[in-house]
Amino acid sequence: MAKKTEEERVISADELSKEFKEYSVAEFFKRNRQMLGYTGKVRSLTTAVHEYVTNSLDACEDSKVLPDILVEVHSFENGHVRVIVEDNGTGIPKKNVGQALGKLLAGTKFMKRQQKRGQQGIGASYATLFGQITTGKETHVKTSLGDGSVYECDVSVDINKNDPQIRNEKEARGNFRGTRIEAEFAEVEYNRSTYGVYEYLRRTAVANPHAQITLVEPNKEITVFPRATKNIPKKAREVLPHPLGITTSDLVDMARVTKGRKIASFLQSDFSRLSAEKVKEIASMCPGVDLERAPSALTWPEAEKVVNAMQKIKWIAPEMDALQPIGLVELEKSLKNLLAPERLKVVERPPKTFRGGIPFMVEAAIAYGGKSGTIGSADGSGAGKGEVLRYANRTPLLFDAGACATMESVKTIDWNRYDLKNWEDMQVSIFINFTSVYVPYTGAGKLAIAQEEEIVLEIRNALMECARDVATYLHSVRRGEEQEARRQIFFRYIGEVAESLHDITGKSKVELEGKLRKIAEEKTSILEQQDDEAEMEELDKIEKAASKAMKDEGEEE
Amino acid sequence: MAKKTEEERVISADELSKEFKEYSVAEFFKRNRQMLGYTGKVRSLTTAVHEYVTNSLDACEDSKVLPDILVEVHSFENGHVRVIVEDNGTGIPKKNVGQALGKLLAGTKFMKRQQKRGQQGIGASYATLFGQITTGKETHVKTSLGDGSVYECDVSVDINKNDPQIRNEKEARGNFRGTRIEAEFAEVEYNRSTYGVYEYLRRTAVANPHAQITLVEPNKEITVFPRATKNIPKKAREVLPHPLGITTSDLVDMARVTKGRKIASFLQSDFSRLSAEKVKEIASMCPGVDLERAPSALTWPEAEKVVNAMQKIKWIAPEMDALQPIGLVELEKSLKNLLAPERLKVVERPPKTFRGGIPFMVEAAIAYGGKSGTIGSADGSGAGKGEVLRYANRTPLLFDAGACATMESVKTIDWNRYDLKNWEDMQVSIFINFTSVYVPYTGAGKLAIAQEEEIVLEIRNALMECARDVATYLHSVRRGEEQEARRQIFFRYIGEVAESLHDITGKSKVELEGKLRKIAEEKTSILEQQDDEAEMEELDKIEKAASKAMKDEGEEE
Repeated sequence: MAKKTEEERVISADELSKEFKEYSVAEFFKRNRQMLGYTGKVRSLTTAVHEYVTNSLDACEDSKVLPDILVEVHSFENGHVRVIVEDNGTGIPKKNVGQALGKLLAGTKFMKRQQKRGQQGIGASYATLFGQITTGKETHVKTSLGDGSVYECDVSVDINKNDPQIRNEKEARGNFRGTRIEAEFAEVEYNRSTYGVYEYLRRTAVANPHAQITLVEPNKEITVFPRATKNIPKKAREVLPHPLGITTSDLVDMARVTKGRKIASFLQSDFSRLSAEKVKEIASMCPGVDLERAPSALTWPEAEKVVNAMQKIKWIAPEMDALQPIGLVELEKSLKNLLAPERLKVVERPPKTFRGGIPFMVEAAIAYGGKSGTIGSADGSGAGKGEVLRYANRTPLLFDAGACATMESVKTIDWNRYDLKNWEDMQVSIFINFTSVYVPYTGAGKLAIAQEEEIVLEIRNALMECARDVATYLHSVRRGEEQEARRQIFFRYIGEVAESLHDITGKSKVELEGKLRKIAEEKTSILEQQDDEAEMEELDKIEKAASKAMKDEGEEE
Repeated sequence: MAKKTEEERVISADELSKEFKEYSVAEFFKRNRQMLGYTGKVRSLTTAVHEYVTNSLDACEDSKVLPDILVEVHSFENGHVRVIVEDNGTGIPKKNVGQALGKLLAGTKFMKRQQKRGQQGIGASYATLFGQITTGKETHVKTSLGDGSVYECDVSVDINKNDPQIRNEKEARGNFRGTRIEAEFAEVEYNRSTYGVYEYLRRTAVANPHAQITLVEPNKEITVFPRATKNIPKKAREVLPHPLGITTSDLVDMARVTKGRKIASFLQSDFSRLSAEKVKEIASMCPGVDLERAPSALTWPEAEKVVNAMQKIKWIAPEMDALQPIGLVELEKSLKNLLAPERLKVVERPPKTFRGGIPFMVEAAIAYGGKSGTIGSADGSGAGKGEVLRYANRTPLLFDAGACATMESVKTIDWNRYDLKNWEDMQVSIFINFTSVYVPYTGAGKLAIAQEEEIVLEIRNALMECARDVATYLHSVRRGEEQEARRQIFFRYIGEVAESLHDITGKSKVELEGKLRKIAEEKTSILEQQDDEAEMEELDKIEKAASKAMKDEGEEE
């Protein structure tokens, strides 16, 4: 290797060791706020509101209550902004308030195989930290489980330790049930742009028709996004992992903590779809591995063999109770409510899996006409421009569209086939909701869904299904217009022709008109029938092309 | 608020509390590997190699040694890949090996106001974790400070606690100095694509001409990227923060730990460019704040006032010793070495700041012709296509180009002005190195630089400077070709014309030819002179347009 240079020096262990330091995850994210979606003044505010509102919606679902959420935004002269979010959900137990709001990587959602809006145990606590590092202010919490006791306190994060600090605790009797959070931020800004709080809540309302959301803006204007249905979504069940969804590392971890006494019984009891017969099948494929031993004895190479075997076996698809889509009826109601479209097609695709075993499903819609395409800007500017409404687990994704699986799907579709080539300049709203127990976000900021092949393909298929319906409508509208125009031409001159014929033949004008009208009607009806046939043929071509495209895609997988 | 629904239920504190869990940062990133750049099999391998190699380069710079780095990649039949990276840097003290390689958020680099390639204390430890969760294998380390004692052990991460686990420790006498790491990964793949290890090391060599990097590929092929210069970059100094670069939160934190006895002396001693006069200026702008008190007494509202005052004062620019660019001469050597271009323009822009006070600088180059544009694919396919070589602190950025400030700058330039409209289809390499004490990455995976306005503008300016030079060259080439073509036309017929004239006038053919030649030369030279003038005018126009564009941009800021 290289010779020593003149300046080269050996550094002593003490000198080097002195340099080593450890940092808390709070310190890490304090320095890397952009990773959590805190970039730009408007977006930072939306991100904080988003964290609170998703927690509120989850808390309401947990207690099976129709969500009533109040969001207030107040601006102060010094540039600070106060945000208040109040819900009627479960409430937070007194002893967990610190974990929920003052400690990163703590909470009820991480690693659960159950669909929740949040999943990382960072959101609300980071909002607390963000308030703290921009204004020095603690976050005030008022919460109650609805048991008559209302708890209040101020929370902050001890950044060096990533531990909650609680001050000014109060407890009183009261009828309140739910959670109310008051936080103050600087380096943020409120406005009604596409990336702002107003638009975020509007979109949240679309995907959560069972929620009622009230917004008080800094100018004191009050907007209510009303409840569109009283059906509370069925609470998502927690499910056992599917054999296709686990890695060797997962299997080894699970074997360490299982209550199963043998590897064989552990596999049966801790996995979904794994019957005694499947255990036999696994055993026959892993000749060296004795499944009658205790799970704790399972070595890594053995686990690797078992997982490899699992990948080769044919399994029943994962249970889908864990998924909680919006629902066809609710989504249709919600979109009609909001967009009053001329034409709306909503589809709910059957569940699929990605990465071998993680279940997901896609709901999609295309709305045409009415107020479609206007939702993009809260002030109505840019109306009539096409837009894509992206959601993951009913939560709007406002930022980073370029990196998102949803936009990738939109891009791969040949919109020309559906008479929607210029959808971006049309009154079109494209709606996509991706539902999964585990959403593969591209970053901790939860801004975009990773472009996994299966996901992109499935969204694409859903959108093509919607597009076909809208294409039929657009065709029929155009055909109707053409036929009407033709009929107009035929009928326009009947009077004059009858008059001329009357002059020549001397026959009754009324009689002549009647005859002419009859001929015209027969003619146009034949033409319309021919139109219908051509139309059917054309649609057929579209259908075939679309199916072929899907098939091609499928084969590329 | 909403009435209770039939199903609605109050959840007990115990039931809710049971759900609360805390997670280690290791667990968090285990579940969110895509955030650290571990997406796709080829990229995951490149990411791991990148983490080791950047650490190696940093360790060599710390000990002022010319880096000699060996990278070996071995593929096994079971799909596992072993990576070995060996360097001749400082070595790791025995007692810090666990922190360096077995604990996330620990290391020597986090929060230092000194330019290093790494900055987050995650990279190498996460590689350990990645090996562990994909193969169950520990990472083997051999290291020595060069004091005759060589230490070896196996490291892994205790995921629940984010703590290092050390096994199989050995110590022996030996001449080795540096660090050798051997790790085994699954769910990775080696190939020579644009995103692969080969291309990564090739690009690393471009920006680190003082390093010698040797790669052994799975097929046992050995490639040496040779050292282009023996000048070791001057070690970056650690600098005090600039008053424009801090937030209220920073000031409050610093006041808690300063050795200064009064706020006034604390400000002077702990900040760069902050003289006694500036303290007076601050004092005059913050009438209510007594700077003669102890720093620990500084309240948040007071700190806010001080920071606001600092934002309004005119400061000398930050010290730039903290920045460590590649250097004009070195970069030019390196690019000529690699690309052998027909034309190369390298620029080093003066340091600037972003976010008010974080110093950064941009080096850029445009190479045209030769082997430019071919580096993009290691196998030479796609040769002659334009490419952008992106770097942050000399570290290649291979992924996520779309989200990166560098590409944003490239996109905003009107390349047509520089005869480079179709640079993407030309033999063009665009090189950008962003240097800063703090690189605002868009994610923990360090794949892209955030699109901060000042950064995008500065890169744009650097590229326009390069483009102007290349435009001049392309113009002169084209002009030369045109003039040559014209001259050819003039001279082609002189023989024939002389012959005809000789027939008519009877004068000597040789004499006639000589005269005609002289006239032709005079004529073409006048035309060439006119060309020159037109050329100058055109270039002038380009310059003016470019300057205007820059000014416009600047004003938009």
